[in-house]
Amino acid sequence: MNVVFIGIGLMGGSMSLAMKKNNFAKNYQAISRNVTTLKKAVELNLIDSHGTFQELVPNADFIVLATPIDAIINQLPMVLDLIKETAVVIDLGSTKKSIVDSVVNHPKRKNFVAIHPIAGTEYSGPESALADLYENKTCILCDIEKNTPIILNKVKELLHLLKMNLVYMSSSDHDLYLAYVSHLSHIISFSLSNTVLNNKENSKEILNLAGSGFASTVRLAKSSPEMWLPIYLDNKQNIIKAIDGFTTKLLEIKTAIEKNDSKKIVEFLYNGNKIGKILK
Amino acid sequence: MNVVFIGIGLMGGSMSLAMKKNNFAKNYQAISRNVTTLKKAVELNLIDSHGTFQELVPNADFIVLATPIDAIINQLPMVLDLIKETAVVIDLGSTKKSIVDSVVNHPKRKNFVAIHPIAGTEYSGPESALADLYENKTCILCDIEKNTPIILNKVKELLHLLKMNLVYMSSSDHDLYLAYVSHLSHIISFSLSNTVLNNKENSKEILNLAGSGFASTVRLAKSSPEMWLPIYLDNKQNIIKAIDGFTTKLLEIKTAIEKNDSKKIVEFLYNGNKIGKILK
Repeated sequence: MNVVFIGIGLMGGSMSLAMKKNNFAKNYQAISRNVTTLKKAVELNLIDSHGTFQELVPNADFIVLATPIDAIINQLPMVLDLIKETAVVIDLGSTKKSIVDSVVNHPKRKNFVAIHPIAGTEYSGPESALADLYENKTCILCDIEKNTPIILNKVKELLHLLKMNLVYMSSSDHDLYLAYVSHLSHIISFSLSNTVLNNKENSKEILNLAGSGFASTVRLAKSSPEMWLPIYLDNKQNIIKAIDGFTTKLLEIKTAIEKNDSKKIVEFLYNGNKIGKILK
Repeated sequence: MNVVFIGIGLMGGSMSLAMKKNNFAKNYQAISRNVTTLKKAVELNLIDSHGTFQELVPNADFIVLATPIDAIINQLPMVLDLIKETAVVIDLGSTKKSIVDSVVNHPKRKNFVAIHPIAGTEYSGPESALADLYENKTCILCDIEKNTPIILNKVKELLHLLKMNLVYMSSSDHDLYLAYVSHLSHIISFSLSNTVLNNKENSKEILNLAGSGFASTVRLAKSSPEMWLPIYLDNKQNIIKAIDGFTTKLLEIKTAIEKNDSKKIVEFLYNGNKIGKILK
């Protein structure tokens, strides 16, 4: 079996390492506009070789789209145009609705399974790939009623090899939920970083005092702008809703502090504590 | 040498473990209103014994105030009233201005060194104490011009044993800087937790999808309300300023997303990335 990656950074590279570890396929190839990335990926043994879109896509048995989502939306229809009748196509994008919409009427829509593995780090590029990135993490599969059982089973087989926990939902629900549980966290981290760095006269003094708490809250601000810009634009409506919900809560605690309203503050903090019982 | 802890939870317990490991003193005792905490602390070998304020304070050589800051502000003047001429007193509170103000005219002000070790976890109580909690962390010493060299050197000796990096500043600067680098992070985490938990109709679905990014941003929401309420009230002015600075940044990225202003978003994200070069 030939696996072809379109994009071979953190997400694609980690999947390739995990596939190799589990003998999922025979050949691993990649396509990328970035020649340095391709060279690095061969050097790091993430892939065996690389080629062009026209060379690799028509012969692929399993294609993984692991580029930023704006690129996925462009590439996916072209991929479906070129693939074999039996080929399986997945994408690893962080939003799903626009991606599935881009091929809604394509005759090979059934070959494409829209997934979102909830895994990642704040680093990017092939050198940040990790063979165990996906292990014991959640993978969301969207709109699977559009797929044939054979195609879907091939994807499930891979995800089980990767030791992922599978969750199913519509691409619309996915985008709404992820706005709260992922996209909002990134916006908050980026905003916190900008707040402290903006404090020109004393940001150095402030940052020298940073403890593990600040580091944890601001960690995601190290994430790739190339990856996040298209997510923010694509999932705009849900993200604005999530930011507004968060701003309301922030204003609630701010007002309680301003008014010395101990009862309200304590209530807010205890309610916040409940997250500890829900998240492991 | 007799060390007496007033409060023996995460912060005091961890300091006791570290002192013991480094043979800082001969006896370790504690005072607490909570009998269960005292029993637990003896059981866990954090302290040798416990007693009352009147029994232990007059015989102590080194006193560590490790209670929430509202309690420190109450206890510190009483402690200074009772101590020996040569005794050293430190507190581990997360704000400093109100604490030093509470004893500004006390005849034994020179015996008290106001410190803030930037260390902690989201857990509390004696069972969460860690012998290496303070290692390689920053410790801020405030307003040290108020201390005699003998007293100050004793505290520095301890902090060097604990392998801490010392930073000196005024208690006012401390409270301003910490609002940005610590108190704000906690408020953000608590607000994020409240935002997601508030989403009644689908918070379970949302939280099932939480990845390591969300967990990292929301981690501090597990922190103790008893510890944080008095910090928020005490450092109100600086915290409101920090919240307002953060809200401005959040609104900036929200507006850029609403307007599809890619240039502005990318600029914001790249600026946020700079935190990665500053924090290790």
